[in-house]
Amino acid sequence: MAIVTAAEVVDLRFPTSAELDGSDAMNPDPDYSAAYLRLRTSDSDLVGHGFVFTIGRGNDVQATAVATAAERFIGRDVDGLCGAIGDAARELAWDSQLRWLGPDKGVMHMAAGAVISALWDLRARRQGLPLWAALLELEPKELVDLVDWTYLRDDLHPDRARELLEERTAGRAARLDARHRDGLAAYTTSPGWLGYDDAKLDRLCREAVAGGFGLIKLKVGHDLDDDRRRLAIARAAVGDDVAIAVDANQRWGVDEAIDAVRELASFDLRWVEEPTHPDDVAGHATIARAIDPVPVATGEHLANAVLAKQLLQLGGARVLQVDATRVGGPHEILAMLLLAAHHGVDVCPHAGGVGLCELVQHYAFVNAVAIAADPAPLVVEYVDHLHEHLAAPIDVRDGRYHLPDAPGGGGAFRDEACATFAFPDGRHWASVGAGA
Amino acid sequence: MAIVTAAEVVDLRFPTSAELDGSDAMNPDPDYSAAYLRLRTSDSDLVGHGFVFTIGRGNDVQATAVATAAERFIGRDVDGLCGAIGDAARELAWDSQLRWLGPDKGVMHMAAGAVISALWDLRARRQGLPLWAALLELEPKELVDLVDWTYLRDDLHPDRARELLEERTAGRAARLDARHRDGLAAYTTSPGWLGYDDAKLDRLCREAVAGGFGLIKLKVGHDLDDDRRRLAIARAAVGDDVAIAVDANQRWGVDEAIDAVRELASFDLRWVEEPTHPDDVAGHATIARAIDPVPVATGEHLANAVLAKQLLQLGGARVLQVDATRVGGPHEILAMLLLAAHHGVDVCPHAGGVGLCELVQHYAFVNAVAIAADPAPLVVEYVDHLHEHLAAPIDVRDGRYHLPDAPGGGGAFRDEACATFAFPDGRHWASVGAGA
Repeated sequence: MAIVTAAEVVDLRFPTSAELDGSDAMNPDPDYSAAYLRLRTSDSDLVGHGFVFTIGRGNDVQATAVATAAERFIGRDVDGLCGAIGDAARELAWDSQLRWLGPDKGVMHMAAGAVISALWDLRARRQGLPLWAALLELEPKELVDLVDWTYLRDDLHPDRARELLEERTAGRAARLDARHRDGLAAYTTSPGWLGYDDAKLDRLCREAVAGGFGLIKLKVGHDLDDDRRRLAIARAAVGDDVAIAVDANQRWGVDEAIDAVRELASFDLRWVEEPTHPDDVAGHATIARAIDPVPVATGEHLANAVLAKQLLQLGGARVLQVDATRVGGPHEILAMLLLAAHHGVDVCPHAGGVGLCELVQHYAFVNAVAIAADPAPLVVEYVDHLHEHLAAPIDVRDGRYHLPDAPGGGGAFRDEACATFAFPDGRHWASVGAGA
Repeated sequence: MAIVTAAEVVDLRFPTSAELDGSDAMNPDPDYSAAYLRLRTSDSDLVGHGFVFTIGRGNDVQATAVATAAERFIGRDVDGLCGAIGDAARELAWDSQLRWLGPDKGVMHMAAGAVISALWDLRARRQGLPLWAALLELEPKELVDLVDWTYLRDDLHPDRARELLEERTAGRAARLDARHRDGLAAYTTSPGWLGYDDAKLDRLCREAVAGGFGLIKLKVGHDLDDDRRRLAIARAAVGDDVAIAVDANQRWGVDEAIDAVRELASFDLRWVEEPTHPDDVAGHATIARAIDPVPVATGEHLANAVLAKQLLQLGGARVLQVDATRVGGPHEILAMLLLAAHHGVDVCPHAGGVGLCELVQHYAFVNAVAIAADPAPLVVEYVDHLHEHLAAPIDVRDGRYHLPDAPGGGGAFRDEACATFAFPDGRHWASVGAGA
């Protein structure tokens, strides 16, 4: 019988602000980081991996929170925890003292998400299954019972969620075959970072089309004239058959967003992402009404399923971009997938950063096979960097994610990455004197 | 010229779970705690105090976050910081890397609030003024310019906020005289904790009336039959002239809240507090419509002014209960006071815990004198414990808060409290072996 023996947390920071091209209107100089948890067990081959993605400063705070959230599970029986992860998640989420620090949002909530993800990673590894397959093994009732419905049932009752999953069992085998064969469409943000000159934008757009991508995304929101010029270049480069989305990264207030999108709508936008503050669900609804038929997309900063519920109830988004480490773990992501399906909204996950692609693909595949009514419009964000630091990097070819087959949830980093990029004592940071 | 030399953060925990009667349906065993910041300066007599209130576990995470948020101000000129606190607050809130950890919510946001509160404490101490007086010295335009309007101006434009403050300057001197003379009404939650037997509830209700309180509050939400019985006892004890509010501490979902309040409405409730999850602004609006004329109150867990804006826009609360340490500091509390005034909603601050009464009274007085249209219905929560640990405890007599006159914002703890209740090395915790 294995027990959890330790929660090792590493403050991993990759020096992307010095090297990387990932700048947008809100995040000019991210150091892509992970507060990385390894749940060790008395079986030295059995380790559960999870992390919270951050963009640099404060990753130490996040790491402290992950350690605090994991603490309660040290000494506990792995069979018991993995056999009833729903109970473990509820125990953590409803810790009356920790709950004060959210509730259900921010550093403490993301920490809980990393811990519950690590338990799922443990469970899937013991089953020898990738996480998507471990989740697909569950019956509709088992999936529904993982979710905490306390604050969601006024919108979607768990009985209806179970019915929805049961309705989707028809044709499920064929949908899984299709995913095995075709994977799932990726889209790329690589051409569209702010700060590229026009020639580079043009070249990268053409490369994206040649690489098989049917959707590219441009960052906007810094300067409207600049946005218009860049969109014209991109549209000319990709032609009319490739879709273009734009991402404002919360740069606008509600009225500014409406004005700006009206100026840009003529470029035939697949969606406008994060037009304003992620907590402003009513503002998103106002924007969505005003800019129709351009769809609003949001989700990478959506703190919990209670906010997602309202966003969908009020019609604030037609594309929900769940993020793998923003919320309280797999069960809350499942809740958001179910809410989106209930409202007929497409889930097109946020990814990029470091490791987010590796994590979120599992939920995207589960959604496409077992939850979404129509997998055709689903697409997963893809950014081509830092994958070499993960133990099981994604397999993206011809503009598509292909089903991962390594056991676990995708959140394991390579030991070499830890040795080099642990902050401030890893080889890289020690060499640049970060600890000084 | 003084500069900021250090940010000392103490993890202060008071062992209230063992001694105190403060239990409710959601928080059965709080250890009232403070992540307590002292901003030291090169002038040893000049220290700025601020803290985040928590209820125990995780206070170390909060303390780490406060230290991280304060770091940027070490080495900076005190004159420069205190002369432009609005700029300092924006610099911290818009740190592109730290912002990822919220944005504007949870541990990192509350940490920013403690730091900006400490800067205001510094400024008021240098002026020799209590914080309320330092804030009242500002012109309407100066007050408005402290607020970050980025995501609020679709509801309340800063020009309109300035006009609102200018309209209130008429009669301001008389309103200040009235506060000097009469203070501000307090209400007490002391009789109403769950777990008291009926005789104790009856006795404490009568004592509250004798003590001059015009409003008492009972915790509900654990068991409806129990709630009904306790409300009947309380109503009989206080008579028809003393108001009774109830507080569900987020215990219910939306539909449950509606059903429960309809069962309890016959007891003539002043308000129903936290009927459901604090992020569910649309849910609050649904509840508010369904239980009208019983008012909905909420705020102690309202993470930011963007959520407050929507709550008011959607009609989700008729009483806004701002909390002194839940949000990003004095400027965000000011924003919430202005939004509430704009919507004609009463602000009746949350207090209790440890030190929250000492902090929040300043904002309540500013609101009553300079912002609210009608101070008559305003009332501030009061709980009679742990005040002895503050350097300048509140002065509550005859059911009323009286204007504090000690310089600063009220957030300084006594050195003795730090020596005894620092966790885990203070005298108390060392003696009970907390660090083991």
